[in-house]
Amino acid sequence: MSVLVATDFDADEQAGFIDLLRGLLPHERFVQSSDGEVDVAIVANPPEGALQGLPGLKLIQSMWAGADRLLRDPTLPKDVPLARMVDPAMNRAMAETALWAVLSLHRRFFDYAAQQRATRWQLLPQPRADEVSVLVLGLGEMGRTAAMTLASHGYHVSGWSTRETNVDGVRTAHGEAGLATLLAAADIVINLLPLTPATQGFFDASRLARLKPGASLVNLARGAHVVDADLLAALASGRVSHAVLDVFRTEPLPADHPYWHHPAVTVLPHAAAQTDLRSATAAAVANVRALREGRPLANLVDRQRGY
Amino acid sequence: MSVLVATDFDADEQAGFIDLLRGLLPHERFVQSSDGEVDVAIVANPPEGALQGLPGLKLIQSMWAGADRLLRDPTLPKDVPLARMVDPAMNRAMAETALWAVLSLHRRFFDYAAQQRATRWQLLPQPRADEVSVLVLGLGEMGRTAAMTLASHGYHVSGWSTRETNVDGVRTAHGEAGLATLLAAADIVINLLPLTPATQGFFDASRLARLKPGASLVNLARGAHVVDADLLAALASGRVSHAVLDVFRTEPLPADHPYWHHPAVTVLPHAAAQTDLRSATAAAVANVRALREGRPLANLVDRQRGY
Repeated sequence: MSVLVATDFDADEQAGFIDLLRGLLPHERFVQSSDGEVDVAIVANPPEGALQGLPGLKLIQSMWAGADRLLRDPTLPKDVPLARMVDPAMNRAMAETALWAVLSLHRRFFDYAAQQRATRWQLLPQPRADEVSVLVLGLGEMGRTAAMTLASHGYHVSGWSTRETNVDGVRTAHGEAGLATLLAAADIVINLLPLTPATQGFFDASRLARLKPGASLVNLARGAHVVDADLLAALASGRVSHAVLDVFRTEPLPADHPYWHHPAVTVLPHAAAQTDLRSATAAAVANVRALREGRPLANLVDRQRGY
Repeated sequence: MSVLVATDFDADEQAGFIDLLRGLLPHERFVQSSDGEVDVAIVANPPEGALQGLPGLKLIQSMWAGADRLLRDPTLPKDVPLARMVDPAMNRAMAETALWAVLSLHRRFFDYAAQQRATRWQLLPQPRADEVSVLVLGLGEMGRTAAMTLASHGYHVSGWSTRETNVDGVRTAHGEAGLATLLAAADIVINLLPLTPATQGFFDASRLARLKPGASLVNLARGAHVVDADLLAALASGRVSHAVLDVFRTEPLPADHPYWHHPAVTVLPHAAAQTDLRSATAAAVANVRALREGRPLANLVDRQRGY
């Protein structure tokens, strides 16, 4: 088969990636620009329009977990199966970041860093993990892994998703009805929702007003989940005491954005769970093999649902 | 029995502590200064000399895990059993801090914080946890809990102690012979050794020179384990890339100490594992009951060994 590799990688990374693919799929032909004869497209933030004019295309395999950016491309072929990346290594990396953020908030390490900058030595209260209530929004692969990791550390973890989902050791709810109670009870809210038309602007003034006063927000999903002006207002009023933000509406975050030097905001450069090409390539290759052998494709995106 | 409570708590904390004790030990008499008739002393950093002239003293129960400060008091009664605090809640708090420090170093969150201060957006490498080698020095209650917690997260964990100790899932060694190899292999070294004459100044120039170039040091034990001038030199040369320091030779850390504003040093105010009076009081009370009922006392310090 002919495999188009379309990414925004730099030349070295792209060459290394194609070497990895060739090693695992020695019988396929790899091309870097469309010549019309393409069976599979393996993509990572491809340029808009890169997948047009490929009548024989049978699979679009993304190397990224989120499909929202691909689905926003109006030229994306409509009837070709689209698979997103589900990689246990990436789920673990995301759970590490969630756990680091929760430990940092629970044990006041962001506050101690501020004290260090001010040459200030002062102990702050140290509750037990079971006295800290964490809400994970979104119970896909990443949300479930994060919730179970946090629960195994003794945190009081709840989970919420749009559809009913069960997670071992985690109290879950779904739909609008279950949301208000969970939002009001959480000390720390972790966003791992998929970005869809329904979750766009999820954290607006009305939802932020439902948080427990002084709660913290950890956004590891997409920048467009947050209405930035509303979050800044909630930080100013003290409704939200700290925000850990890995994702932004414009990335890189513009140099003049108020988040950069806000004392209650931790800015990460979309680093919560980078794709590890070693393991992600293996996951992509498994789907290409399934296609060749006529087996079912894994991790297909439901375009109606948006993830 | 008559119980002397000698601490450096402020008046409110002392009153709350005695209330807790009274609730659990309704038959004992509590005094706050020595009247000679004292059976048990419950202490937390008592003023030097506070335990002199108590001929009937049968147990000194410390609320702190480390006994080094008590043992340095030349007026400490020599033949009275001395128990230190062993509290599962404190062990868990220490493991949380160790895990936070390891996650912060492994996933570069200290570097991302520096980037945020510089308005800089740049992804840094993201190795898997099993590619990060962590060495825990000291395998007492706290060291073991920290090592097992880190191993359960997928880190490659080794442990070292002066005497042979086994820890599930952790490769251990003991004595000088095993130390050099482990020091040279670790990306992150966590110090949880007891402070004794033998471990005083443990991290001096010669030991720091054995670390893997660019390793990080996390000192959660005692400030006197580190020769500060030698650590500052190792940070300057790049042998040590980052130090997380919770403990110092003088506490609070003096305002003019170079650690405060060193870009590669994270200063914490002896916050890694505060005594949680709720659970620690229960542990102390268990020993007082054992004394009253003639059962063996727990967590006695071996004064020869120093812990």
